Amino acid sequence: MKKHNFSAGPCVLPQEVFGKASEAILDLDQSGLSILEISHRSKAFADILEEARALTLELLGLKNKGYQALFLQGGASLQFYMSAVNMLEKKGAYLDTGSWSSKAIKEAKLLGEVDVLASSSDKNYNYIPKDYKISNDADYFHCTSNNTIFGTQIKNFPASDIPVICDMSSDIFSRDIDFSYFDIIYAGAQKNMGPAGTTLVVVKEDILGKVSRKTPSMLDYQTHIKKDSAFNTPPVYAVYVSLLNLRWLKEKGGIKAIEEENEKKSKLMYSEIDINPLFDGFAAKEDRSTMNATFTLNEPKLKETFEQMLVDAGINGLNGHRSVGGYRASMYNALPLNSVQVLVEVMDELENKA
Amino acid sequence: MKKHNFSAGPCVLPQEVFGKASEAILDLDQSGLSILEISHRSKAFADILEEARALTLELLGLKNKGYQALFLQGGASLQFYMSAVNMLEKKGAYLDTGSWSSKAIKEAKLLGEVDVLASSSDKNYNYIPKDYKISNDADYFHCTSNNTIFGTQIKNFPASDIPVICDMSSDIFSRDIDFSYFDIIYAGAQKNMGPAGTTLVVVKEDILGKVSRKTPSMLDYQTHIKKDSAFNTPPVYAVYVSLLNLRWLKEKGGIKAIEEENEKKSKLMYSEIDINPLFDGFAAKEDRSTMNATFTLNEPKLKETFEQMLVDAGINGLNGHRSVGGYRASMYNALPLNSVQVLVEVMDELENKA
Repeated sequence: MKKHNFSAGPCVLPQEVFGKASEAILDLDQSGLSILEISHRSKAFADILEEARALTLELLGLKNKGYQALFLQGGASLQFYMSAVNMLEKKGAYLDTGSWSSKAIKEAKLLGEVDVLASSSDKNYNYIPKDYKISNDADYFHCTSNNTIFGTQIKNFPASDIPVICDMSSDIFSRDIDFSYFDIIYAGAQKNMGPAGTTLVVVKEDILGKVSRKTPSMLDYQTHIKKDSAFNTPPVYAVYVSLLNLRWLKEKGGIKAIEEENEKKSKLMYSEIDINPLFDGFAAKEDRSTMNATFTLNEPKLKETFEQMLVDAGINGLNGHRSVGGYRASMYNALPLNSVQVLVEVMDELENKA
Repeated sequence: MKKHNFSAGPCVLPQEVFGKASEAILDLDQSGLSILEISHRSKAFADILEEARALTLELLGLKNKGYQALFLQGGASLQFYMSAVNMLEKKGAYLDTGSWSSKAIKEAKLLGEVDVLASSSDKNYNYIPKDYKISNDADYFHCTSNNTIFGTQIKNFPASDIPVICDMSSDIFSRDIDFSYFDIIYAGAQKNMGPAGTTLVVVKEDILGKVSRKTPSMLDYQTHIKKDSAFNTPPVYAVYVSLLNLRWLKEKGGIKAIEEENEKKSKLMYSEIDINPLFDGFAAKEDRSTMNATFTLNEPKLKETFEQMLVDAGINGLNGHRSVGGYRASMYNALPLNSVQVLVEVMDELENKA
């Protein structure tokens, strides 16, 4: 039985992507070769990489605006350090909205001064701080657009005269915002873009090259830009599956179209959380993420029953992160509305049983 | 038509690995989930990662000897810097046997003093220097066991009283040597271990923690050891396919068994290069790599004919690297002997035509 996969990432991808991704392992486009055995310098892969880079910029509305799209490795965790090593000369300004922001702050501190403009750690990160100003004496402002663990999401980004770096790992390609507001966007692929194993970096070229330190080759964005994102062997298959996913998104009508679907899913989910007396939402209502809904069951004696019902309904990956507990429904781009309907039915049914 | 794939990497993997790797994209072990959509914290993936780490040490004969196997990202190119950042306090000693060694030297220089003990750059790296001594005043000795581009391979490693770091990207798991001689082995997966997208690091735990610098979390081997190689999201699929490949190697009889096959292939290849008057071997005979045979055609007017014959025979990936020119036959573990036979027949046939 095919599962309803609410996993927080790696997560569900479109069924048609799985189909093509599986075929290419046996034979890539009737080439007689598997995608896993072709050279990263072959024309076949050069075309895949180039299309993935171009389609990324096209979908984000950043074509011909001075941006470069790179498919790197190491996840957002490496970008915490790498973004700072490329941008922090004297001081970085950070917004602390959860575990990932905190980790980014920790790595930046190795390189210079860090100014934490605001933090929601006082309430276990269940909201997005809004009462802060970005001053011009920092080299850049860094934020996390969506907090997977806590289920919060920045809805309005603050005015900034300095470059903005954003960890968009868990909501890139999910909503129609002005991406040209950002100077560096980074995102582990394993939510809305593809499988684990590649990290998207979208960078405005003219903000680079302004720090005085000597940067290791692999950690310098300019190294990768100069070599068209193939300085060393790229993660070939992860890039290929990301391309299949980006093509799927384009065919669906792009980010505007998927945003509508994402809103339908999250509205349905949150209205159930709000209506059903057995469940409590974790995040502040105005900051609720459309990607990850976090909630707890307020009748501990129903826990076992509920979790058996989830298993019976084929629902996978609903466990909350240990920092929050309870449940987390991750509703990335490829999760069908029907999966949310099934989950909501189970929650309804539990209420009827209670 | 299935090709004879002599690609230098990413390269041919066993046919049965492709089959299982393709199935798991649609449904991993009848779980109802694709390997691409499961959480890296799921039991299914934790088991895969643990088995891959254990099997690596078992195959290398390093079980229970104080070593840890890590599946990281970023390729050998990131390891050039990462190995030095973990080990270089005052001085690193390097053997320069080609492009990859030179790149490792460049990155280490960012961190301290580098002593290049010997180099074969005087002859475009067509041999392995032997006339050098490792003194005890360096923090470690670094070498590249096999030089993919030039087709040379270290046959006897020098005596060393200091830790030895080895870039084994292109010949790990290919020959039966005493791996406990090394303290850190690193290797991009995309030759003998699996697809592009993961990097194996095998490290002797007790040599770590001796440098005084503050190391970024993701570049610190101890970070990854503490989290059982899952500090952040691992490259799930690349690890899975590597495991399939390691299982295949174990079933074949392990490194001893594959070494015999590799020797048969390389003997056949080099004897053709030596016998056929149209071709010249590039590497010094005593240093010839069993993995990558580099050779040139000495009759330029036959180039077009030869290359058409290669295409007609279904031979892929024989072009030499631009630093050497000519041809390069990469004969990694999964390349069937039959593929070498087909190539040798084409070379014979060309001689008959000439």
